[in-house]
Amino acid sequence: MKRGFGSDNHAGVHPKILESIALANIEHAPSYGTDDWTEAAIKEFRKQFGTEAQVFFVFNGTAANVTALRALTRPYQSVFCSDVAHINVDECGAPEQMAGCKLIPLPSRNGKISVEELEKAFIRRGDQHYSQTQVLSLTQPTELGTTYSIEELTGLITWAKSKKLYVHIDGSRLANAAIHLNKSFKEFTTDLGVDVVSFGGTKNGLLMGEAVIFLNKSLAHDFKYIRKQSSQLPSKSRFIACQFTAYFQNDLWKEIAGNSLQRAQELYEAVREIPQITVREKPQSNAVFAKIPSAWVKSLREKYFFYVWDENTFECRWMTSWDTKSEDIQGFAQALKEHVHPPASPK
Amino acid sequence: MKRGFGSDNHAGVHPKILESIALANIEHAPSYGTDDWTEAAIKEFRKQFGTEAQVFFVFNGTAANVTALRALTRPYQSVFCSDVAHINVDECGAPEQMAGCKLIPLPSRNGKISVEELEKAFIRRGDQHYSQTQVLSLTQPTELGTTYSIEELTGLITWAKSKKLYVHIDGSRLANAAIHLNKSFKEFTTDLGVDVVSFGGTKNGLLMGEAVIFLNKSLAHDFKYIRKQSSQLPSKSRFIACQFTAYFQNDLWKEIAGNSLQRAQELYEAVREIPQITVREKPQSNAVFAKIPSAWVKSLREKYFFYVWDENTFECRWMTSWDTKSEDIQGFAQALKEHVHPPASPK
Amino acid sequence: MKRGFGSDNHAGVHPKILESIALANIEHAPSYGTDDWTEAAIKEFRKQFGTEAQVFFVFNGTAANVTALRALTRPYQSVFCSDVAHINVDECGAPEQMAGCKLIPLPSRNGKISVEELEKAFIRRGDQHYSQTQVLSLTQPTELGTTYSIEELTGLITWAKSKKLYVHIDGSRLANAAIHLNKSFKEFTTDLGVDVVSFGGTKNGLLMGEAVIFLNKSLAHDFKYIRKQSSQLPSKSRFIACQFTAYFQNDLWKEIAGNSLQRAQELYEAVREIPQITVREKPQSNAVFAKIPSAWVKSLREKYFFYVWDENTFECRWMTSWDTKSEDIQGFAQALKEHVHPPASPK
Amino acid sequence: MKRGFGSDNHAGVHPKILESIALANIEHAPSYGTDDWTEAAIKEFRKQFGTEAQVFFVFNGTAANVTALRALTRPYQSVFCSDVAHINVDECGAPEQMAGCKLIPLPSRNGKISVEELEKAFIRRGDQHYSQTQVLSLTQPTELGTTYSIEELTGLITWAKSKKLYVHIDGSRLANAAIHLNKSFKEFTTDLGVDVVSFGGTKNGLLMGEAVIFLNKSLAHDFKYIRKQSSQLPSKSRFIACQFTAYFQNDLWKEIAGNSLQRAQELYEAVREIPQITVREKPQSNAVFAKIPSAWVKSLREKYFFYVWDENTFECRWMTSWDTKSEDIQGFAQALKEHVHPPASPK
Repeated sequence: MKRGFGSDNHAGVHPKILESIALANIEHAPSYGTDDWTEAAIKEFRKQFGTEAQVFFVFNGTAANVTALRALTRPYQSVFCSDVAHINVDECGAPEQMAGCKLIPLPSRNGKISVEELEKAFIRRGDQHYSQTQVLSLTQPTELGTTYSIEELTGLITWAKSKKLYVHIDGSRLANAAIHLNKSFKEFTTDLGVDVVSFGGTKNGLLMGEAVIFLNKSLAHDFKYIRKQSSQLPSKSRFIACQFTAYFQNDLWKEIAGNSLQRAQELYEAVREIPQITVREKPQSNAVFAKIPSAWVKSLREKYFFYVWDENTFECRWMTSWDTKSEDIQGFAQALKEHVHPPASPK
Repeated sequence: MKRGFGSDNHAGVHPKILESIALANIEHAPSYGTDDWTEAAIKEFRKQFGTEAQVFFVFNGTAANVTALRALTRPYQSVFCSDVAHINVDECGAPEQMAGCKLIPLPSRNGKISVEELEKAFIRRGDQHYSQTQVLSLTQPTELGTTYSIEELTGLITWAKSKKLYVHIDGSRLANAAIHLNKSFKEFTTDLGVDVVSFGGTKNGLLMGEAVIFLNKSLAHDFKYIRKQSSQLPSKSRFIACQFTAYFQNDLWKEIAGNSLQRAQELYEAVREIPQITVREKPQSNAVFAKIPSAWVKSLREKYFFYVWDENTFECRWMTSWDTKSEDIQGFAQALKEHVHPPASPK
Repeated sequence: MKRGFGSDNHAGVHPKILESIALANIEHAPSYGTDDWTEAAIKEFRKQFGTEAQVFFVFNGTAANVTALRALTRPYQSVFCSDVAHINVDECGAPEQMAGCKLIPLPSRNGKISVEELEKAFIRRGDQHYSQTQVLSLTQPTELGTTYSIEELTGLITWAKSKKLYVHIDGSRLANAAIHLNKSFKEFTTDLGVDVVSFGGTKNGLLMGEAVIFLNKSLAHDFKYIRKQSSQLPSKSRFIACQFTAYFQNDLWKEIAGNSLQRAQELYEAVREIPQITVREKPQSNAVFAKIPSAWVKSLREKYFFYVWDENTFECRWMTSWDTKSEDIQGFAQALKEHVHPPASPK
Repeated sequence: MKRGFGSDNHAGVHPKILESIALANIEHAPSYGTDDWTEAAIKEFRKQFGTEAQVFFVFNGTAANVTALRALTRPYQSVFCSDVAHINVDECGAPEQMAGCKLIPLPSRNGKISVEELEKAFIRRGDQHYSQTQVLSLTQPTELGTTYSIEELTGLITWAKSKKLYVHIDGSRLANAAIHLNKSFKEFTTDLGVDVVSFGGTKNGLLMGEAVIFLNKSLAHDFKYIRKQSSQLPSKSRFIACQFTAYFQNDLWKEIAGNSLQRAQELYEAVREIPQITVREKPQSNAVFAKIPSAWVKSLREKYFFYVWDENTFECRWMTSWDTKSEDIQGFAQALKEHVHPPASPK
């Protein structure tokens, strides 16, 4: 497949992470999370999120979200999320089916929800006819490439805590938010009172693997059963764990997320003044959203793959990843420009 | 960790399979099963199971079983399985929770169920008060290291078909059965009328990955949604697919399963006449079950790890894998013998 | 409790329906729906809905809705409904938990959804990441006391059928719609292509009891198991069935619904010109929605109980029932007027 | 339908209970359990079970069991019950689907399970692969018409408490056990440490209605949501509540259960010495189990309806109820005797 801007899960495995797998492939190791690699990886997570963090590996991002919600809710409870949240529109109803709970999608702006909308939706407490809200789930960075600021997070989490709600972060690209905010993971999760984080690996250079991180230790009590019953207990667990260790060691994660963000901003700068293109605000993660003339799509995608995000407006999502290079950006910008002023055909 | 006989998922990744991952790690590939590696792997599966086979990759064995059962049942239906079936006793209630259906465990002998027991349990058809049986699930080879013969399978499947039940095979080690029966996969699955197979990779030298194979094509119709909703759609799907391609190419699977079975029989021969040890019948897969004096367990496990299968009788399970060597067998047999006649302590 | 306008389920049992229970209370009868009373009641339903109708009794309205949705969906499918639909906001998440499916709430106007909103929401067909819409659920009359006209129903159902969606009617007060539309039940359900109806009894003068009516016969095939598994199979079924027979015989249902609607219109006329009261449009069912000064609520409710529908605007719901009398209306209107011009206190 | 011995739910409503419904049918009452009748009925329950009892009405016995289990378990937990338990074989898989949990059926003798069997089945605590047992569910009296003695109950409950399991009683005919044991309800439930009781009304002379009684108050905390989400919140709740008040007042329940048991013993005495009939032990509830020649069944059932309990052995269940009369017993015994010595045909 040609290189492109389709998704950060179109990129392969970072060489250092692939190497970690080869290094873990020696002799025998206990299975189901009782191996030394798992222990080592958990230590790395605790360096990032604090010593109380309870860490469990699962296979993919949907699983991280759904098992976290299973731990936080009973089926007669509900979860506030944005109307564009991955759990609401991209998981084929997994939260409802696997956790039995109800999602309450709230209006969002650039992927973000506000305290104002939460306040309006927080109704009918104690009314037996109404599913009782138990969790606020935030995606950080959001599905639209924006990142909640520390102030926004503080406001949302403070509100949630005042209502005795748990706070869940869908962080399939959490490292991007850390880079954008220029904060440690702990500073914008644990320190603000977040209860559980879905921490992504697959979209950040891993072969596959995600982590459910309980910052509120008491909630992790029975999670091992929830994970297993949800078909998410990896047997050869060392091969997920070792990737995360490599990801954190020597700040590889910063290199990976840093490249993604830098290239996204480069792309933004390269295309924002091209005529006929309407770009959203400066990227705060690894995606540029831009409306282009519909006629351009087909030929552009033959050179660089990407997704049309909105079939009506022809807004497209251009996503960078750990392996995106400056020449990819320049080549793509050039291709876009050629659509504005097609080169004269040879005589 | 020391080498041992703990489980075939204690072994690492076969070098050729690890190599396939490195080879697939080039540039970009579409995600969620739309890549060339997935297509190639499906072709390999069709060579083994017939051209109609519909193949879907999932992360682990519990998932393969549970998503298959979700496709075969509605929640008011039930599944016949053996009382020692993995789905009944080793999946933390995942089938009940994720599929909503009921399991009806049947008495087994050496891990196998019989037509006689099925006949007795097949009751109350059409009775609205009683969960209606819809599926016969067989583990092949069984959890106790036995393998259903072609005659046994024919009898069980013919009975099931006469009752309009679907037949599911939990084949987390199906390759071992193929080697033991000396048959192609197709001959003891597709050709006998099996509807769906959970095909194992993880216990057979893969890093991780299983396949749900619909031999009855019509049942696969909506499976893509079931897989996604069960949190089992791999995003970087090429890295599971490539492993299976390597597994089938040049009959690597025969080498892997062949070694496992050969070593198990070697172990059986090496220990069956050691005094104070009671061994079950000759292994038909990659496990030897043997009762040993309880006093031996601790010191033996310090040298070679294994599990005590039955805490009351001290029956132990000794499991071989693709990487078990003859010297492992001989070393272990020697250790056992030393427990019978402890070497004289040095003076 | 004082009489009032709280809900039609605050009213008791119509005397003729209570009498039918006494008449059914003779000797022994088979249980679980195999009695003569059940057969007789089903005949009455078929007179109303057509000879193909498959009728199943359940205990309450939530159950009728949820078991119907279980019959129409698989968990990876979704249901379109209005944002104020009973299934969405008044059943404590029962559809999600019991059917596993997802609800997609659509913006509504006076309780109604439009083809335009359906069209916008009908997206991502065949996309494995997105719960696939399978059902359009309409409440008739709506939760806000409006009734879809034949033209509106035709438009909505035609659209649904063109998309191969099933159509479910939540008809906990369906008789009211029949009276308002001046149509037989069949004319605005069966004849328009509705697949399943939740038919209400409890809010229409019964002691308790609802019916799930499959107009699309093929969908009823396994419903007896779904009903039982959902804990909704009445054992002494004759006592629900006999009520429905009494309800349909001699057009008692018309008397019941007719009184409810007539009184609601009487109430509307009596209060619409009272100063400081803002009444919604003329009632099309048995509820009048009106905003009153918040200061009036407490003392008014001491005389006539009712619910404040919207705690912010102090819009109230005044609901009539089979036993509402003209003097109730006049007394209430008088009480309202007294709040406008408080009587002079006695000297 | 002719009178017979089919089931206690073939009998109608006791006149005093029917009368209570007529008396409750006055004017308006709040719905959903907030009415005076509900309050009064709860007081009666507290007289029987102790002042801490938390009482919730539901529609039927399956619902009482399933909602109780939803309150006691999370889906990764399991429930011990007998292999003939109603929850295991007569609820169409409702516990598994609605609670998500797993049932572990244990071998029983005359419907009873023993501490010995519990002990054997209580395994793999803390093992994430194995559904963790959380509840012991006992049916009292059992499905086979036997009643656990105080000694047996004490033994079973003491064992359960020592393992930190909750104890649930399926008491759809609990009053029969009280009469047989000659104890108050409290003495063999609350006082022994039972946590939750499913208390039956429908099989004991009510029109319909059951109660979930939490003797362990802390478990009732969120039950109102569980009940509603399970579609089991009655709207016109007064009409269930009033029946229970009538049932307890003036010890009507003793009259009802007393007659059932007395008639069952009468039947036992009347048939035990009839040749060709093999009767089980003396009834401890309201059922006599007896094997009769298969040739008798058809003509006997034309006079007195009953169920063949075991199609292989032709063991039949003859069930008495509140309205069984001595002449029913004598007539049936006479009919049985006539099958032994058929009367000479008239010349």
